[in-house]
Amino acid sequence: MASLKVPYPVPSPTEDAESLRKAFEGWGTDEKSVISILAHRDAAQRMQIRLAYEELYQQDLIKRLESELSGHFEKSMYRWIYGPAEREAILVYTEVRKANPTPDPRPIIEIACVSSPEELLAVKKVYQLRYKHSVEEDVAVRFTGDLRKLLVALVGTYRYSGGEIDTRLAHAEAKALHDAIEEKAFGHEEVIRILTTRSKAQLNATFNCYKDEYGTTVNKSLSADSENELFSALRATIRTLTSPSKYFEKLLRNAIINHGTDEGTLTRVIVSRAEKDLQEIKEVFFKRNNVPLTHAVAKETSRDYKAFLLALLGN
Amino acid sequence: MASLKVPYPVPSPTEDAESLRKAFEGWGTDEKSVISILAHRDAAQRMQIRLAYEELYQQDLIKRLESELSGHFEKSMYRWIYGPAEREAILVYTEVRKANPTPDPRPIIEIACVSSPEELLAVKKVYQLRYKHSVEEDVAVRFTGDLRKLLVALVGTYRYSGGEIDTRLAHAEAKALHDAIEEKAFGHEEVIRILTTRSKAQLNATFNCYKDEYGTTVNKSLSADSENELFSALRATIRTLTSPSKYFEKLLRNAIINHGTDEGTLTRVIVSRAEKDLQEIKEVFFKRNNVPLTHAVAKETSRDYKAFLLALLGN
Repeated sequence: MASLKVPYPVPSPTEDAESLRKAFEGWGTDEKSVISILAHRDAAQRMQIRLAYEELYQQDLIKRLESELSGHFEKSMYRWIYGPAEREAILVYTEVRKANPTPDPRPIIEIACVSSPEELLAVKKVYQLRYKHSVEEDVAVRFTGDLRKLLVALVGTYRYSGGEIDTRLAHAEAKALHDAIEEKAFGHEEVIRILTTRSKAQLNATFNCYKDEYGTTVNKSLSADSENELFSALRATIRTLTSPSKYFEKLLRNAIINHGTDEGTLTRVIVSRAEKDLQEIKEVFFKRNNVPLTHAVAKETSRDYKAFLLALLGN
Repeated sequence: MASLKVPYPVPSPTEDAESLRKAFEGWGTDEKSVISILAHRDAAQRMQIRLAYEELYQQDLIKRLESELSGHFEKSMYRWIYGPAEREAILVYTEVRKANPTPDPRPIIEIACVSSPEELLAVKKVYQLRYKHSVEEDVAVRFTGDLRKLLVALVGTYRYSGGEIDTRLAHAEAKALHDAIEEKAFGHEEVIRILTTRSKAQLNATFNCYKDEYGTTVNKSLSADSENELFSALRATIRTLTSPSKYFEKLLRNAIINHGTDEGTLTRVIVSRAEKDLQEIKEVFFKRNNVPLTHAVAKETSRDYKAFLLALLGN
């Protein structure tokens, strides 16, 4: 369930565009007003507001926001204003094309595994329109070795999303996973093949067989070598495929509680999930940490950035 | 250009369904009449006829055709009656799921490389609907080693289809291809990465650089080890990406002139290309062999099968 709250009745896109214009004009920006509008509109409504603003003032709303806002608030608004496909295409691009010598595979894994096949395809289409390259080719160039194999296959597969399960196959592939992990097989080709091509329903069945037969989870078996970047990417793959809410809860926990504040991750998770499953993530967070996510976020952030995130969290 | 010829005005789907019914009834089947109808209707029209037939006679036209026809004529009609996406999904399935111990990678390469990204996606969607699996997972299970890497990446990539070219990149990747082929690099990962992810326009530029700088084509460089199945699949990949008409001409030539008659390949190429580029393929064939493709096909086939292929060839 989404945490986003949209008022009823919602103002027309033209009214919203006019209110935003008012918030930008005069001495300083009225950030509160910007938040009260944009943090309470869904993707289709934000797109309508962008179009209305462009038509009324012959100005790109996103450019105007960039010049009016600053810091983490600006960055998070820049993520939020776009619809999901465009936002995630920008996220992938930022990861694979930026100068950063060690790109983070997690945003790519999230987009490939949490999205439905149609959502992933929409991201790939927007990426091509914006950047004149395919996601596959840019990911293939940016990463190397086994991590490349995993990521290119993840973004490449148009995964089957039906619910059918083949129990015999689940047993056979649980064994294949176990053998490959035990033997530390070179490149883990079988592990990569299974994780990147099988349907989520089939993988769930396979992971359950694994647990029944070997008394531990695949993820725990992959935890032995915690420094290995392929293993850590494989674990993220499994978690995003099978329990995204738990995966995102852990990201948030690490971003705000355990290691100081990691605003990049905090923004990414809240902005990307607000219209999807942030409500579940909040519940998982509370169960795990005995503190509401909103309190934890409020403690680690400040001013407009804080107000904006709390609004997206449904406060 | 297509070789298919559709009469003008074309009978209504109901009229066609009735004429087919007439051809099936009585003593023996009137194959001539079946050919005169179905070999002269495009994919959308054939689909309309199937629907009309089902509605009029509560019978599946395809099942009826299977019981009325036989031999290579039946097999080729069974390929033709479907629209392209369904037909190619069936072709892939036949290759990857049949008991045959050495599946032929060529039909998969053709579908992945000759099709546009949207056409390939349509095949993958139909495949999932029909077989409750993804193309990616079935190809990954059916092939092994480097050939698997190539084929899974080919069917997985949603290739960029724009015309932009990056000349510096073309030079760099021509060198990367040359180095990898010279060194007989293990698994040819760079070769596979470049061929499976780059746009056709970019690959053409890269292959031209290769020719300019190394005085030979990539394909010739890959011909040294002609028995190697990966090399032969890589050559097919390059040919289907850059010059599909020449690729199909060669397939036809081998199927009918060089080595006796290979009806499977002959049917596949004529049926799959009749609505697309069989006209160009005929021209290339004539230039290369000094004999019209229709004559060569007529010489190697007989009866209804021959009449059907010649009709599809536009005779």
